[in-house]
Amino acid sequence: MKLQIAFDLFSSDDVLKALKELHDLVDIIEIGTPLLLREGVQAVTKVKNKYPDFSVLADMKIIDGAAVEASMAFEAGADIVTVLAHAEEKTLENVKNAAIKFKQKVMVDFITIRDIQNTVQRLENHDLDYFCIHTAHDTTVDGKTPIDDLKRIHSLINVEKIAVAGGLNPDLLKTIQPYHPEIVVVGSFITRAKRMRASAVTIKEMMGGIKEQW
Amino acid sequence: MKLQIAFDLFSSDDVLKALKELHDLVDIIEIGTPLLLREGVQAVTKVKNKYPDFSVLADMKIIDGAAVEASMAFEAGADIVTVLAHAEEKTLENVKNAAIKFKQKVMVDFITIRDIQNTVQRLENHDLDYFCIHTAHDTTVDGKTPIDDLKRIHSLINVEKIAVAGGLNPDLLKTIQPYHPEIVVVGSFITRAKRMRASAVTIKEMMGGIKEQW
Repeated sequence: MKLQIAFDLFSSDDVLKALKELHDLVDIIEIGTPLLLREGVQAVTKVKNKYPDFSVLADMKIIDGAAVEASMAFEAGADIVTVLAHAEEKTLENVKNAAIKFKQKVMVDFITIRDIQNTVQRLENHDLDYFCIHTAHDTTVDGKTPIDDLKRIHSLINVEKIAVAGGLNPDLLKTIQPYHPEIVVVGSFITRAKRMRASAVTIKEMMGGIKEQW
Repeated sequence: MKLQIAFDLFSSDDVLKALKELHDLVDIIEIGTPLLLREGVQAVTKVKNKYPDFSVLADMKIIDGAAVEASMAFEAGADIVTVLAHAEEKTLENVKNAAIKFKQKVMVDFITIRDIQNTVQRLENHDLDYFCIHTAHDTTVDGKTPIDDLKRIHSLINVEKIAVAGGLNPDLLKTIQPYHPEIVVVGSFITRAKRMRASAVTIKEMMGGIKEQW
């Protein structure tokens, strides 16, 4: 299991500041969609330049113009870009082709997807690296969780391809653990905590120890 | 009918340069998704500051974090923001509430929506300003057009709420005209033309004359 920390409401300067105290706990640094829309992909470059050995994910949520948008993120230094599962086949192909060209990875985001099974079948041909079960933040505040969808996808694809996101905290992580997703995405539980490092340590310990032990 | 010109592959400086020769022909200036991802919402501000009397649309394609993302676009100077029709109800509500707060507008983007009728029914309660039938650019290059979906939505909602986008050129515009959509979105036919102004004039004349006559 890898810990992806999602930085959404931060500026890129704030991300760099936060990483000073979190860098030994994070596996994938997510430059969130609101941050990308606020600053553009230079936010990716700033973070990647400072942490070249870390995986940086650009949460582009691509649904069109895939060759241009994916290439833009990879050129900026992203190791992983996201594409929406709602995208057309051609868009998925174009993202994959950009990832091949740049030797990088694609995460397909299941946000607002209702029919997990058919979507997985539709996506299977595209050889995408990660399938991210994702409950929208706008609904997690009302108590929705990604657990049921995680159970569904767990019976359909290899755990090494599974990521999970959406309001994750220690309680939810306990429910998630039996499904051993490859990537656990945590945002506000860490990034909005008074003591960010303590929160990240809590999550990391639940996931099975500190980074060096993996 | 209003002409929305979509600037996708331009920098904000290129948009300003293009508007020098297009400003009397355009009704809505679209800051496209790739441009937003490249430069951030400051691209909206740059264009709005130069053209304060024009409607500027920020093609944010919101699917989550709506309060933050919509407010960010409106604060940057956008008159209209886009939200995906795939978004959760709560996300649509949050975008609408931001639009009310800033006294601005919302366009809901039907990109990759298959079931127009059910989606229109689902969206009707949210009092969104424009419904944009939109064929993904990634598929228009293979010949897909928004015409069939435009016919479908035309029988379901008031034409004053309808926008249409996706590879539009004079031939397609001829097919679209009988449905009188409020907004016609044109991108590459104008923005990638050798003679941008001549192409925009062609579209504008087909739509019924120059701006002053509307």
